[in-house]
Amino acid sequence: MVRLNIGLIGLGRLGRVYARDLGTRIPETRLVAVADVDARLAEEVAREFDVPRFSADPQSVLDDPDVEAVVIVSPTHTHAALTRAAAERGKAVFCEKPPSLSLAETYSMKQAVERAGIFFQMGLMRRFDAGYAAAWRQVQEGVIGTPVLFKSTSRDPHRTSLEYANPKSSGGMLVDMGIHDFDLARWFMGDVASVHTIAGTLAYPELKTVGDIDNAVVSLRFADGRLGAIDLSRNGIYGYDIATELLGTEGTLRIGYLRETPLLVMKKNQVSHDTVPFFMERFAGAYTAQLQDFARNVLQGRPAPVTIDDGLEALRIALAAQRSHETGQPVEVASVSA
Amino acid sequence: MVRLNIGLIGLGRLGRVYARDLGTRIPETRLVAVADVDARLAEEVAREFDVPRFSADPQSVLDDPDVEAVVIVSPTHTHAALTRAAAERGKAVFCEKPPSLSLAETYSMKQAVERAGIFFQMGLMRRFDAGYAAAWRQVQEGVIGTPVLFKSTSRDPHRTSLEYANPKSSGGMLVDMGIHDFDLARWFMGDVASVHTIAGTLAYPELKTVGDIDNAVVSLRFADGRLGAIDLSRNGIYGYDIATELLGTEGTLRIGYLRETPLLVMKKNQVSHDTVPFFMERFAGAYTAQLQDFARNVLQGRPAPVTIDDGLEALRIALAAQRSHETGQPVEVASVSA
Amino acid sequence: MVRLNIGLIGLGRLGRVYARDLGTRIPETRLVAVADVDARLAEEVAREFDVPRFSADPQSVLDDPDVEAVVIVSPTHTHAALTRAAAERGKAVFCEKPPSLSLAETYSMKQAVERAGIFFQMGLMRRFDAGYAAAWRQVQEGVIGTPVLFKSTSRDPHRTSLEYANPKSSGGMLVDMGIHDFDLARWFMGDVASVHTIAGTLAYPELKTVGDIDNAVVSLRFADGRLGAIDLSRNGIYGYDIATELLGTEGTLRIGYLRETPLLVMKKNQVSHDTVPFFMERFAGAYTAQLQDFARNVLQGRPAPVTIDDGLEALRIALAAQRSHETGQPVEVASVSA
Amino acid sequence: MVRLNIGLIGLGRLGRVYARDLGTRIPETRLVAVADVDARLAEEVAREFDVPRFSADPQSVLDDPDVEAVVIVSPTHTHAALTRAAAERGKAVFCEKPPSLSLAETYSMKQAVERAGIFFQMGLMRRFDAGYAAAWRQVQEGVIGTPVLFKSTSRDPHRTSLEYANPKSSGGMLVDMGIHDFDLARWFMGDVASVHTIAGTLAYPELKTVGDIDNAVVSLRFADGRLGAIDLSRNGIYGYDIATELLGTEGTLRIGYLRETPLLVMKKNQVSHDTVPFFMERFAGAYTAQLQDFARNVLQGRPAPVTIDDGLEALRIALAAQRSHETGQPVEVASVSA
Repeated sequence: MVRLNIGLIGLGRLGRVYARDLGTRIPETRLVAVADVDARLAEEVAREFDVPRFSADPQSVLDDPDVEAVVIVSPTHTHAALTRAAAERGKAVFCEKPPSLSLAETYSMKQAVERAGIFFQMGLMRRFDAGYAAAWRQVQEGVIGTPVLFKSTSRDPHRTSLEYANPKSSGGMLVDMGIHDFDLARWFMGDVASVHTIAGTLAYPELKTVGDIDNAVVSLRFADGRLGAIDLSRNGIYGYDIATELLGTEGTLRIGYLRETPLLVMKKNQVSHDTVPFFMERFAGAYTAQLQDFARNVLQGRPAPVTIDDGLEALRIALAAQRSHETGQPVEVASVSA
Repeated sequence: MVRLNIGLIGLGRLGRVYARDLGTRIPETRLVAVADVDARLAEEVAREFDVPRFSADPQSVLDDPDVEAVVIVSPTHTHAALTRAAAERGKAVFCEKPPSLSLAETYSMKQAVERAGIFFQMGLMRRFDAGYAAAWRQVQEGVIGTPVLFKSTSRDPHRTSLEYANPKSSGGMLVDMGIHDFDLARWFMGDVASVHTIAGTLAYPELKTVGDIDNAVVSLRFADGRLGAIDLSRNGIYGYDIATELLGTEGTLRIGYLRETPLLVMKKNQVSHDTVPFFMERFAGAYTAQLQDFARNVLQGRPAPVTIDDGLEALRIALAAQRSHETGQPVEVASVSA
Repeated sequence: MVRLNIGLIGLGRLGRVYARDLGTRIPETRLVAVADVDARLAEEVAREFDVPRFSADPQSVLDDPDVEAVVIVSPTHTHAALTRAAAERGKAVFCEKPPSLSLAETYSMKQAVERAGIFFQMGLMRRFDAGYAAAWRQVQEGVIGTPVLFKSTSRDPHRTSLEYANPKSSGGMLVDMGIHDFDLARWFMGDVASVHTIAGTLAYPELKTVGDIDNAVVSLRFADGRLGAIDLSRNGIYGYDIATELLGTEGTLRIGYLRETPLLVMKKNQVSHDTVPFFMERFAGAYTAQLQDFARNVLQGRPAPVTIDDGLEALRIALAAQRSHETGQPVEVASVSA
Repeated sequence: MVRLNIGLIGLGRLGRVYARDLGTRIPETRLVAVADVDARLAEEVAREFDVPRFSADPQSVLDDPDVEAVVIVSPTHTHAALTRAAAERGKAVFCEKPPSLSLAETYSMKQAVERAGIFFQMGLMRRFDAGYAAAWRQVQEGVIGTPVLFKSTSRDPHRTSLEYANPKSSGGMLVDMGIHDFDLARWFMGDVASVHTIAGTLAYPELKTVGDIDNAVVSLRFADGRLGAIDLSRNGIYGYDIATELLGTEGTLRIGYLRETPLLVMKKNQVSHDTVPFFMERFAGAYTAQLQDFARNVLQGRPAPVTIDDGLEALRIALAAQRSHETGQPVEVASVSA
């Protein structure tokens, strides 16, 4: 089997999962170089997955002539520069969401990608989850008639670190967490015309110190008048909960699940089960499928199913939602520009 | 609306529910007399539901010329004599399961009913539960092809009183509790050829003092070779659980449910819900529907859907199961006679 | 048992259920008079439930000296006048939701009730549903910590008649259907400060001819900054679906259920079950419990748990949501006055 | 990381999964040789997973000095000879269930293993499933008090091939399919004293031509008097269904699940979801975990958690169940000897 030589940049929580997938689970890839600012971590990961080269400097991955494609999972503020550098070197790029924290930066990525004519795939993994993928097919097949309402809920099982929650680092909850739901909204329903947000710091007052919120409700009006409702929360105390619904004129689809272990515990007057711990467990399959799809697309010369434009537009909705939160008014998505 | 004048004998736990149903919920009935050996209870029930006459002596109900039909919910050992007496007086009879504790007694009831030509309906309420009734219709419609396996589980949420558990009083677990499952087995699948039982007093050792068991597994071979498996337990600690399955050649039906209140409680890493407390809650609708059906059958001259033969044959299976438990051997049902 | 003599006005779909409950299911009531503009219907209901007096004129019920309490289930535009008339005669009143279609009319009811000092109970039955009641108790007990997000969904299984959908008759979807969710929002969370609505006629274009919508998403900001999200739809094609969630700082409560018959049908690669047909089935118990509560409150001199103010404020939120839909802007609830 | 060099014998449906796991998913293993009587298949698998050596002759794997441990997934009738040969060469052995089709053969394996003092692990993968493993831990922790009833259901989604169903090839349904449930019974509850079986060829008459059955109900009495009930079926038309219950004195555990894709499809009056296709999907994680456990045990010198005795005793129960089916009588498990 022909394999794609991958250089992986960023070895945080998700980066290590990507290293495992690229190094051991995806037959179409060969992980040939890893980089992380934490040199010890880079060495450790390289040893664990038999990766020939590791470095504390992403530049060495980008300059590695053996690297055909770069997978970028480093902190968001580094995405744009790394993408531009990879584009200059003609490497194929997979970039984890969000593309960046500003439209201007994202436009610069788009420009670099288009100028260099490189292959670029945006990481928005929910599209590769078995539930979302099956729902999307059923919508296309007309199973539920015309969808008229898109509903989506994303809840983390606990507060993120204050460092990460800082909007300067992650973009804040509406960008960092919401971008998945905004992307799903576009994927299932098309362009979003306007949004309205209400939000607050209601469960974890300490988040106010870094300027983030922990709960939000966003209404979406699609360009054709259809409706959307998204709620986001950091206090899904019971477990990681990602659920989406498409209400159509002839039926409804509900995506998501809560139970992790196939075990019901039944005690006096009570039936209970456990829940999904976090995104690694819920979307383990989707992360792997997404990177495998990336490799196959590059190897077979197929277009990316998730593009820089998808990242750009999902970010635009998130920024519009943020502006609505700040102003208290509905915001036209098109009015948000770089 | 023409109403049927009912005399009710027996005002225990279930008798009071029957009094409420006959007195207030079923438009086709008028409760005109109640009797219980506990005179104070009879008076109290009569007052609660505006019943004109009450007594400590069932004879007075039987002799009441205004009473057109008798509902018998008194202790099992009284069923046969009361049925015979009602038959002699030409009253229609509804008799709670089991018909009696012996085949000989039950044959005497059958004889009395047939000789007098009275209407007699056996109380086996599960047949009137929405779930069981819907399953039965779907089996007739061929939804699951040919059922090949009948599975049924009955579990009480706690131990019965030692007095009630005494086989001399209730017939023991295989008769008292199992008769419902044996009746369902016959209703869905037809004649039972042989049974094999394993059982024990495993959860409540004190039941040994009265000679009863608390767990049993009964295998059934139907006359045409199809299979059945029933398990009974007194320690359904988590709640009252009645569940039946019909496995067919083209699909499967599962009857039953566990959740009582439409509420999910989701706490840290756990989702839970409550359970059905006991049979009054689980089968409230079935009890009412059964008595209403009885009244309509009498008023409209329709035959009883559940006959003394149904009671007799379900009892015969139960007694065969009991004999198998005692001998450790499979038992031919037909070999069990009065 | 002392019984309350009831006169029932309005015998439509819900009125007949109330007649059955008041006439046969609630020991504390005696249904002594019924009225409906359809005289034949009034007679029919009276015959079915042994009601001594019936009429095509509600006035006769109001003037009936035997009537101690009036239950009003007639069309909404008649609620205010009937309540005022009952108040003048000193009768206790139970009035179905919504109180009326305007704040001015509702204030006139409030005034009449207060001036006459009569007992008045607003009909908002979800508060009497086992699921909602259990959730409310658990919130009070602190099971989920502090609720920070209130989410609620109401979906009819099919379009209402164009006649009924007409906002002039029913108030439109935001009032007619939404008032239940707005009342729950207040009951669980307290005062609503502002609302924002997006809505459309997306599934049944013919509703545009009478000026109604069929889908809406309403965001609510509570006075203390907490959040709410409500979605309403006429195209719950799969079944009647009423679901509410309270997301708290230490857990979550989910109220509602979908399955009607306790039966799972399992065919090739598919497990399915039926759904709740409509509100009569979903809230049968709540309707009965609500009227029984009314009777007990009047008989025992207890205050009403659901008052004219509850009706007034839920209506105010609905009207604010309607105004937001019309203007596209968030609306302060307090700015909506008679 | 130190890796264990594995030789894999047998590349059928399950063998290929083992190849993938050993070759790509388990960091502790290195797949150095594969063999299958189908030479083309051996070559294909070797190419897919970069296995250095492949052969049509298992002997070459056994004789390979680089092979430290042999994984045997070839047809059951070859297990004993291969195990004996591996033992003679001092290789560690992982052998798929059932050990063989006769007690005599299995005793010969046991003798060879013990004489050579090699490491031997029996493949009974359900013990490594997250649900079963969690249940086992909770039983040890006393969560349900003392288990008194063990219930287990195994259903294939469709008939096996007649060739495979042939008892001479697979051992027949009670051995081939039942051995998992019999092993679970021993694992959770201890020694089985006696069994009673009823069975039939009820759904697929063509199975009679090869002498196999398609439905069976087996009652088990454990040595300490506790009870068990197992039902097996080839016509789980709706999907692959493996479910086990432990009913205890203080609660109950239910292991298993039915839904494969996290998607509910809700159409007119119906809610449905898909089901688990087959064992590869249901137990994908368990198969991987089991081989990883094997590798770790060998590398770290730990004893096998599932031994040849576990295979032997589960087989003995299966053979007793088979004899009961043939004689119609309960059978003492201890009476079944080589």
